[in-house]
Amino acid sequence: MIRVGIVGYGNLGKATEKIVNAASDMEAVGIFSRRQTSSDLGTPCYFYSELKDFVGKIDVLALCGGSATDIPTQGRELIRMFNTVDSFDTHALIPEYSRDMDAAAKATDHLSVYSAGWDPGLFSLMRLMFESVLPKGNTYTFWGKGVSQGHSEAIRKLDGVKNGKQYTIPKEEALAAVRSGSNPELTVRDKHLRVCYVVAEDGADRDEITRQIVTMPNYFADYDTQVNFIDEETFNTEHSGIPHGGFVIRSGENNGTKHTMEFSLKLESNPDFTASVLVAYLRAGYKLYSEGVRGAKSIFEIPLSYAANIDINEAIAHLL
Amino acid sequence: MIRVGIVGYGNLGKATEKIVNAASDMEAVGIFSRRQTSSDLGTPCYFYSELKDFVGKIDVLALCGGSATDIPTQGRELIRMFNTVDSFDTHALIPEYSRDMDAAAKATDHLSVYSAGWDPGLFSLMRLMFESVLPKGNTYTFWGKGVSQGHSEAIRKLDGVKNGKQYTIPKEEALAAVRSGSNPELTVRDKHLRVCYVVAEDGADRDEITRQIVTMPNYFADYDTQVNFIDEETFNTEHSGIPHGGFVIRSGENNGTKHTMEFSLKLESNPDFTASVLVAYLRAGYKLYSEGVRGAKSIFEIPLSYAANIDINEAIAHLL
Repeated sequence: MIRVGIVGYGNLGKATEKIVNAASDMEAVGIFSRRQTSSDLGTPCYFYSELKDFVGKIDVLALCGGSATDIPTQGRELIRMFNTVDSFDTHALIPEYSRDMDAAAKATDHLSVYSAGWDPGLFSLMRLMFESVLPKGNTYTFWGKGVSQGHSEAIRKLDGVKNGKQYTIPKEEALAAVRSGSNPELTVRDKHLRVCYVVAEDGADRDEITRQIVTMPNYFADYDTQVNFIDEETFNTEHSGIPHGGFVIRSGENNGTKHTMEFSLKLESNPDFTASVLVAYLRAGYKLYSEGVRGAKSIFEIPLSYAANIDINEAIAHLL
Repeated sequence: MIRVGIVGYGNLGKATEKIVNAASDMEAVGIFSRRQTSSDLGTPCYFYSELKDFVGKIDVLALCGGSATDIPTQGRELIRMFNTVDSFDTHALIPEYSRDMDAAAKATDHLSVYSAGWDPGLFSLMRLMFESVLPKGNTYTFWGKGVSQGHSEAIRKLDGVKNGKQYTIPKEEALAAVRSGSNPELTVRDKHLRVCYVVAEDGADRDEITRQIVTMPNYFADYDTQVNFIDEETFNTEHSGIPHGGFVIRSGENNGTKHTMEFSLKLESNPDFTASVLVAYLRAGYKLYSEGVRGAKSIFEIPLSYAANIDINEAIAHLL
């Protein structure tokens, strides 16, 4: 059994706990949080500061905190004591994070698997696969239909707004153009639509709320944005989930013929699926470490067989 | 430069030659065929029997013969002198082929990458990825729209048939049922439609040809089959290509929420795309061998970074 420690106990940490428990080859040794917490599943809960007492008792840590501040700090700290796997998703900071994790892991004889979620993660794997197989062509990534937490929060902060949620939705005409192989040039506005559902406070100026949303710089001004006002009950019934997904499409050419490669995800819950990928790469990290690999590894550098809970000969016989 | 030898000079060998020539890190050293042949691109052509003189002059051989008889024989023979990469696609015989290649490669200090096309190949990779990430669920593979060479040949052998081609087409209602997450039980007849285009000889009995096609055991009897008679000119204009493609779809569940993962290919030319994958894995085979790896490796066991003609740090910065 792979002994897993879970660091952070928000949506991602909770999903990771359940999925680790459901895996036949893993057990959750503990949950580590800065706050006092308790688990419905009976996993022992500890304070983050107690982690140092678990050296030698945990094979690999799942870093389930936020990418803004938790993972960059905790990853750099914990890799000195443990093997870690994370889904760090601040794309611009990945190269620096990867270099720091690699150096610290090698210096302290550990292994890190980083940015193993769905984007970055499985989508990244597809972008590299597509470019490797069809070097001539263009790859397009679309996100959605899915909830953007940051944009939803930006709406909720406005005066007169009681609740709000924003969905990013790929535009059908842009998807069709990409799939046709015409290799279109697409701006951010061409690719995605932003649809907002807002519960306004009684007596609030709805036109003013709409104006503030659609003109909000960075968040909405560069997009086609729709604002829908709904009542609280409708909001709670129809918009309580956190679905997500997306598409990676490459239209390319080789030897004079055209080909389209496409990968897509349709997810009922973004954190549940991210945790599903994270758990597969906890297994990969454990296997790599057991074979003597040290340092920080991206999903690009790990054979898929390491993430699988299937014997390689069975996979060759039944899935190849 | 990776020095590549190409064994077999049919559609796949010709496409491989062009794609190797277009790659910035490879060169085609020679084409090896049992028949006297010549290359429009100026690659030197030799007889298969001359291969033994190229030991030490070729880094990796691309086995481009047929899977029925060429690759099983040539692979087992050539792995004793060279590193080889193939797209061997007789699914039922892969485990045996893999064991023989592994033993011979290890005994003679070589490396084999086998069954690296699109199915087996990229589709296999998806099947393993999908099952690793979502252990609970069902994976469905659909093929087409694409030409089946075997079925086309079976039609052409019938009395009164001048020319014929068969397309395998996934049924839209089956794709929709799978994507909906209902996990349907699907028979072969439920999944694919077989559409035939036939050029009949003058005076041939078309009803009898149709009857013989739709009742043909193994090939058509278990499927919904459509037979269309067309004239020779239409056949040559509209049905001279060898398109293919398909879908791998998994509908699964984790932690109580449902997710759908889908990978699809739409290929203008089946051999051109197969060659594109083969060439990426020629590179992977070369890198693995250079790092000291010996034996036979499936696509499951090879990190994608090995197939890429991109520096890993560049991939991390731009594609992760």
